Amino acid sequence: MRPVEEHAAAVAALIRATGTETVALARARGRVLAADLASPVSLPPFDNSAMDGYAVRAADLASTPVTLPVPEDVPAGRVDGPPLAPGTAHRIMTGAALPDGADAVVQVEWTDGGLPGDAVRVDRHVEAGQSVRRAGDDVVAGQVVLTAGTVLGPAQIGLAAAVGAPELTVHRRPRVLVLSTGSELVAPGQPLRHGQIHESNGPMLAAAVEDAGGEARLLRFVPDDVDEFLTTLEAALAEPTDLVVTSGGVSAGAYEVVKDAFATRGITFTKVAMQPGMPQGAGRYADRVAVVTLPGNPVSSLVSFEVFVRPALRRAAGHPHPDRARVWARVAEDLRSPDGRRQFRRGRLDLDGTVTPVGGAGSHLLAALAHADCLFVVPAEVTEVAAGSEVEVWLLDG
Amino acid sequence: MRPVEEHAAAVAALIRATGTETVALARARGRVLAADLASPVSLPPFDNSAMDGYAVRAADLASTPVTLPVPEDVPAGRVDGPPLAPGTAHRIMTGAALPDGADAVVQVEWTDGGLPGDAVRVDRHVEAGQSVRRAGDDVVAGQVVLTAGTVLGPAQIGLAAAVGAPELTVHRRPRVLVLSTGSELVAPGQPLRHGQIHESNGPMLAAAVEDAGGEARLLRFVPDDVDEFLTTLEAALAEPTDLVVTSGGVSAGAYEVVKDAFATRGITFTKVAMQPGMPQGAGRYADRVAVVTLPGNPVSSLVSFEVFVRPALRRAAGHPHPDRARVWARVAEDLRSPDGRRQFRRGRLDLDGTVTPVGGAGSHLLAALAHADCLFVVPAEVTEVAAGSEVEVWLLDG
Repeated sequence: MRPVEEHAAAVAALIRATGTETVALARARGRVLAADLASPVSLPPFDNSAMDGYAVRAADLASTPVTLPVPEDVPAGRVDGPPLAPGTAHRIMTGAALPDGADAVVQVEWTDGGLPGDAVRVDRHVEAGQSVRRAGDDVVAGQVVLTAGTVLGPAQIGLAAAVGAPELTVHRRPRVLVLSTGSELVAPGQPLRHGQIHESNGPMLAAAVEDAGGEARLLRFVPDDVDEFLTTLEAALAEPTDLVVTSGGVSAGAYEVVKDAFATRGITFTKVAMQPGMPQGAGRYADRVAVVTLPGNPVSSLVSFEVFVRPALRRAAGHPHPDRARVWARVAEDLRSPDGRRQFRRGRLDLDGTVTPVGGAGSHLLAALAHADCLFVVPAEVTEVAAGSEVEVWLLDG
Repeated sequence: MRPVEEHAAAVAALIRATGTETVALARARGRVLAADLASPVSLPPFDNSAMDGYAVRAADLASTPVTLPVPEDVPAGRVDGPPLAPGTAHRIMTGAALPDGADAVVQVEWTDGGLPGDAVRVDRHVEAGQSVRRAGDDVVAGQVVLTAGTVLGPAQIGLAAAVGAPELTVHRRPRVLVLSTGSELVAPGQPLRHGQIHESNGPMLAAAVEDAGGEARLLRFVPDDVDEFLTTLEAALAEPTDLVVTSGGVSAGAYEVVKDAFATRGITFTKVAMQPGMPQGAGRYADRVAVVTLPGNPVSSLVSFEVFVRPALRRAAGHPHPDRARVWARVAEDLRSPDGRRQFRRGRLDLDGTVTPVGGAGSHLLAALAHADCLFVVPAEVTEVAAGSEVEVWLLDG
């Protein structure tokens, strides 16, 4: 059987780096910056007042109280920059440019609040530089403020706006076509006959693709006939597609449309040394588009997606941390695991560093998966894990 | 000055619980379930095969090898359920319903692979129940599979689909109108004159609202004249709005449009005992819509959003964990903090449990905030923190 790392590397090699695109700030949240962003301006762009008060020369306040004429009013945004003559004070608001000739701001609370056109009595001395934010304190013009690979959250978007960038160059989201096959499948909301189940892998994997930062397109109930399957696939590939992810149709059975359609068209089917998720496939369909085939059991499907597809998609989209956060924790109960297969169990992680298995090893136990907040790993060569042993835990979101 | 908790409680009380809405599974990712979801079916809905192989009666395999006729082929999805007569085997595929009369499945690898209409030689005995997944193993009909308050990720969406739910009842996302004021502000992409800066709070706070699970609508460059401000606001409130968030216009200056417009219309302006973020306001505008006014410095604005607005929005939207994850860590350097004000510093948290301050305490240091991955807290009564002391750390995403 193929080691997990080997198949992971094959999938990663298959999914090519996406290109870049330019998006408005309002659309940039959660995206990954594709190029360093240098600031054309300093931040602050000019010396400005940190307080509401009066712009002064500190030397004029050598002895206080002192009364100074207030020739000008400088609200934030005043652009004509009236200079300050010695022996005077301009009223100034927080964020307004410090007038030429001024070297400090005295806050309004330390004055009698005299109005522009009149005079102000200043009661306290200030040092040169007091309540002044210097140009370039935060950012110097030319400085790279965000490096390629940064994930854009509110603060990063705010910083980009502050340096004047109305849009950003980001990695394009991988476009993923999700196909589900299986003649036993019925859409949720439709009644079941005996032998039928509701189709769940499609919406589940589409959500997993979006969670990983991709754009998912979902094609459900693709026909189980090879020719119809290929016709449906070709029609869907008319839209640009970076990856096709299928689920089901890959095991040892007599009706395995995914395997039958793809085995002679560039996709290699292998058994991977893991549980769940042994039957895997990957390759380039007709030399054109990356394909990853996941097993059909929901738990196998989502665990395989976590192990192989998610990190590859995030890497292709330039994400600085393609893998799930991993920690070590003590397992709460004794466990068994098959020899020679890496087992991925579902669990819940407690604050005290204990991981409790949720549900058994069965690959059909979707409710258990939905109540887990982590996966944990039993190495391939380990067949018994005693309660209290440390295991590697992959943290799932939320 | 008002304690942080008191203002946080006032903001939380102001933002009412949003109603519920029904969304298709494809739109449910990241939403919070508003009602328990009970399954009308069991999962699996019927006993089914865990393997590709042959449905048999274990009693017929008392001695092996044994050759049995194969009257029927049961692929997954076959709905007419052919019963199994004693002394025969039906070929069966993974997921297909176990025929009445069968009590086990023998996997194809343990047989000669005989075809339907012919016979199969079975080489190994199996116990009753082997390779059979029992109806109800995962979920019993009537069972609540997802409880109200669950955040919907891929596994939860998969489970909802599996139990047949085509759509889910979720909490409506809070609709937040973000306003920015200030005559010094210029749109990113436009040139700056001396005294002007690029507007950054609007896109930053809109991204923060979306990050918190809200729907943001951004109104930038709202006029600094009170009448024009109110006219613009009233026009925007024609669309349903759960909360108005403003930034700027609330300090002690002479031109504070937000304060001037709102102080007589239901909003209370207070000084909160924190740094940054002292000038805060909250109330119900004209008895109609919740308003929170944040200070205008970008760092003050985003930190105040984190402390007051984000948890209130998430609570209103039914989120089970409204607050940021919090941990304790040792601070890497000596720090000072003003007496009587809770200080929120920006930091980076290392894997070894050390938090390193990023940038100083200045509320204009946006670049530093954009390079932080956490906030950490210096309590109000603490004025000096020695390197190595433990501080509470709030983990920011990404």
